[in-house]
Amino acid sequence: MPRQRPKPRATPDDLAFGVHACELALRQGLARRLLHADGASNRRVAALVERAQAQGLPVEAVEPERLAELTGGGVHQGVLVRLRKLPLVSIPRHVEAPSLAIVLDGVTDPQNTGAVLRVAVATGAEVVVLPPRRGVALTPGVHRASAGLSFLAPVAPPLNLARALAQLKEAGYWVVAASPGETAEDATTFDWPDRTALVLGGEERGVGRLLTESSDFRVALPMDSRVESLNVGVACGAMAYLWRARWPART
Amino acid sequence: MPRQRPKPRATPDDLAFGVHACELALRQGLARRLLHADGASNRRVAALVERAQAQGLPVEAVEPERLAELTGGGVHQGVLVRLRKLPLVSIPRHVEAPSLAIVLDGVTDPQNTGAVLRVAVATGAEVVVLPPRRGVALTPGVHRASAGLSFLAPVAPPLNLARALAQLKEAGYWVVAASPGETAEDATTFDWPDRTALVLGGEERGVGRLLTESSDFRVALPMDSRVESLNVGVACGAMAYLWRARWPART
Repeated sequence: MPRQRPKPRATPDDLAFGVHACELALRQGLARRLLHADGASNRRVAALVERAQAQGLPVEAVEPERLAELTGGGVHQGVLVRLRKLPLVSIPRHVEAPSLAIVLDGVTDPQNTGAVLRVAVATGAEVVVLPPRRGVALTPGVHRASAGLSFLAPVAPPLNLARALAQLKEAGYWVVAASPGETAEDATTFDWPDRTALVLGGEERGVGRLLTESSDFRVALPMDSRVESLNVGVACGAMAYLWRARWPART
Repeated sequence: MPRQRPKPRATPDDLAFGVHACELALRQGLARRLLHADGASNRRVAALVERAQAQGLPVEAVEPERLAELTGGGVHQGVLVRLRKLPLVSIPRHVEAPSLAIVLDGVTDPQNTGAVLRVAVATGAEVVVLPPRRGVALTPGVHRASAGLSFLAPVAPPLNLARALAQLKEAGYWVVAASPGETAEDATTFDWPDRTALVLGGEERGVGRLLTESSDFRVALPMDSRVESLNVGVACGAMAYLWRARWPART
């Protein structure tokens, strides 16, 4: 009996779906193949097909069900691309001020990761460290949630977070944990360091104890006591721009 | 032939679903009836049932399908409450500084409205003006997305936004439109007024032209030119905390 070919997994890691994510993947030269819904007449999808063809990429019209299957039921808008290996950035050995690094601890929801990556690109962060997840830094859900800005974000390869913090300190960053508590300073009056590695935690558990303890500073957004926490994307946006207010971009 | 009773609409406006939203509705005394999934054994739902009974509210165990129907397929977690008339706050006639008002123009996505309401409660905003929508200020989706903080947020009754801005100016607010463009000031260096009415627009169209023109100031978050915009909840969080950094809460 011949060996069966392994079944393709329903949601491979090397794809992006939805118009925005596919557009940015193509624009960044990160697509290697495009699949679109057969018979659909969406002008934005048609433009992506043209762009892929102009890049000499294989383009395939498939049944919409195939797209639904590949994206695990995601909102694919009739288009997906298979991706090349994504370029990742190493944590720099030495950074010039001002510089912002963003580290996520325990954030697993793609919506939240996507929102943080949008903030990272918007504020010109130097590097983003994501929690290791099946050895993959970025997933299709994150590409989608970030509207493809994940392809522009300076994402580091998955690595142990304690190790990442050590490397960031080595590079000249001060580690600032967003972690409410008695010893936390008010993020709106905090004297943000010119080289800040901002550590944010997941909504359920926040920044882990060990990471908090190995941080140089601990900050929290002042808030009404009836609010347990803000969404991590919102908190990241607020803190990144409070840092930026103290350290304007070099022009 | 007897007249048929009108069919109940699939998603009435006077309900909240999900554990967090139901909990806050009960805590604020805003629930008038609780429905929960028959036979489910969720401890958090059981605690809500107890609390509703302690408040003397009618409690009904229903088929999960009924919850799915009433919530329009929302993530109800086995529980919903029917709401009393929600208390709304009028735009004040005169405000003492510092004070923040938040006005949303064209934001219709419940996730975004919910995120903004969380920020509003967190930063102690005085009043939130939402775009009129079928005459309803808040919807079940917004309660859900805000994790029930919509029940704590100082939401104004639905009213015409131009009229709302006029009333806010009358009360002493300076109207600041978050609206990128040549005349926009950098939100991180902007000298935020002590009484700020922050106007934020929907992701597609931003703040409308007329509202922008009738604003006192126009600001934008500085961002990488490859980023079209940030999520409105994230932008609201960043700007509200930049304002708060300039005008700390009275303690």
